[in-house]
Amino acid sequence: MHAGAPSTDLATLLPPALCVLGLGLIGGSLARAALPFVPVTGWSPSLATRDAAGADGLTVAESLPAALRAAAHQDALVVLAAPVTAFRSLLREVAEHAPAVRLTDVASVKAAVAEEVSQIAPDARYIGSHPMAGTAESGWAAGDATLFDGAAWVTCLTDESDLADWSAVAALALALGSRVVPTEAQAHDSAVARISHLPHVLALALAQVGAQGGALALSLAAGSFADGTRVAGTRPELIRAMCETNREALVAALDDALGLIGVARGSLGSTGSLFKLTEGGHAARAEFEARDAGLEPMTLSGDDLIEQLLAVGAAGGYVTDLRGPAADLRIDVRYPDRD
Amino acid sequence: MHAGAPSTDLATLLPPALCVLGLGLIGGSLARAALPFVPVTGWSPSLATRDAAGADGLTVAESLPAALRAAAHQDALVVLAAPVTAFRSLLREVAEHAPAVRLTDVASVKAAVAEEVSQIAPDARYIGSHPMAGTAESGWAAGDATLFDGAAWVTCLTDESDLADWSAVAALALALGSRVVPTEAQAHDSAVARISHLPHVLALALAQVGAQGGALALSLAAGSFADGTRVAGTRPELIRAMCETNREALVAALDDALGLIGVARGSLGSTGSLFKLTEGGHAARAEFEARDAGLEPMTLSGDDLIEQLLAVGAAGGYVTDLRGPAADLRIDVRYPDRD
Repeated sequence: MHAGAPSTDLATLLPPALCVLGLGLIGGSLARAALPFVPVTGWSPSLATRDAAGADGLTVAESLPAALRAAAHQDALVVLAAPVTAFRSLLREVAEHAPAVRLTDVASVKAAVAEEVSQIAPDARYIGSHPMAGTAESGWAAGDATLFDGAAWVTCLTDESDLADWSAVAALALALGSRVVPTEAQAHDSAVARISHLPHVLALALAQVGAQGGALALSLAAGSFADGTRVAGTRPELIRAMCETNREALVAALDDALGLIGVARGSLGSTGSLFKLTEGGHAARAEFEARDAGLEPMTLSGDDLIEQLLAVGAAGGYVTDLRGPAADLRIDVRYPDRD
Repeated sequence: MHAGAPSTDLATLLPPALCVLGLGLIGGSLARAALPFVPVTGWSPSLATRDAAGADGLTVAESLPAALRAAAHQDALVVLAAPVTAFRSLLREVAEHAPAVRLTDVASVKAAVAEEVSQIAPDARYIGSHPMAGTAESGWAAGDATLFDGAAWVTCLTDESDLADWSAVAALALALGSRVVPTEAQAHDSAVARISHLPHVLALALAQVGAQGGALALSLAAGSFADGTRVAGTRPELIRAMCETNREALVAALDDALGLIGVARGSLGSTGSLFKLTEGGHAARAEFEARDAGLEPMTLSGDDLIEQLLAVGAAGGYVTDLRGPAADLRIDVRYPDRD
């Protein structure tokens, strides 16, 4: 499914409206991208951002309570697109003004957010999500309606999730061109610690070890250093917000990395060989490059759809289309062909 | 100085001919790139490679001794462009057939090669070099005449170097569009351990920690993981040849990296903060991005040119043009403006 062309069935599953709280890079991109498909209202705590978004044609709410009351009235999907550190106060407003609203978020950690929602706004129809898209830019002006096109969009499920709530979030992600990856929150957090948060930590360390080599080292640095340190250019507070909120999973990933690097250092120092690390690392990179090779189209249906969806995500597959009604979904996926 | 347009003065400093031993990616690119400027003869131990290079129009020597005797006769610059593990046997042939020839190499380690040259072919007029260019490709067919355009080309100097020998290598590098970085061999080895070899080790480790997260992790991996693991796709034997021959310097760089990552892990695990790593790493990346900002054009001349050149390289500067005669060089550089 490509942005701009949701199937007729998909359109019937979209939420009736969208209320985006936070209009930075992700929220601003989401508001722009969704506008062709559903009515969108935005809100930001910053007056300057509200004015800029309004000037660009977005419908902007007067206040957070007004935005939430309107969302409850319209049965809109509310999207928490603020920094995760602002979620507690946002959720208190949700609980007060739109307690049973459809709710999602775009934070890069999922278990901690699910826990906060269950504590503060337990009646919200919450489906956690995480579009794996971004740039080093930030702010409303950096928003880009095509940001989600081709990206993985994580949607979280538990045994108790309501598939109708999930299908509204998934339909939105599909309409925006993303592939939808269903998973449990904890599995998401472990995965992104390894493939997003750890790369940031290693890039930061590499940048420093390079700079410790002085001007000569930096003048000789070429592709491998430039690529390996690119994300160290991300704003430090964004890296910290992402990594520090996923502390437990990131510590585990860091321990795995320290183990591998430490063993390689020991081997190089004692026997002079990097055989094990180079073979293992090269094979792992090949596995990454071939990740889509074994996926085949399938359609899910039946009574145990949550279980089936979680199996698809765990196996590296994803959702490509949905057909309603919400009470009897047909879900097109790409799933590993085990033959 | 751009490939295709050496100054008249630069042309007078070029070696009268080039003899490239080894016709893989680097040797094959060098042979192609130099052909507009000097007569080039190539040789490879592989008959298939010799045939392919000959079919592409390169003058190919019948045998290694014939190549070296002709080089001695022409006062050609001999370039060791084979894997560094083949250097000992090549140097024995140099000592036998062209003992006092102009000699350079393109290996990614420099102190160990200089030591081998001084042991095996002590009369060769050797200037070590290392063009910081390459791709994940290999072999004659992968060669590219533009490979060195815009790259840093390290040239090694000691107090005892002959500047006439150096100027022939430097003139060649400049004619091919490279910026020439003068340095001592040991300083080169320490620098590339940090900005080339360490990035490979970290990429290999990151690829494995990501793959250990299973199919879900790999399916969610996006830009930060793709960039951070890119060089793990390089052939393992090439990574090993590069890293293992620079063992001592790489172990030191690995210890620095393990120290930084270990402290960050400890801080994250105990206090939950990555403040120090993010601030330091972000600043280091900014330093890398700004590395050229403070460089100003200057011209070197005088009696202590080797000392001046080493100061330029150590400060992150580089040579942009040469004017002869070789006995009274004027050397245009870009050098940090300390004001």
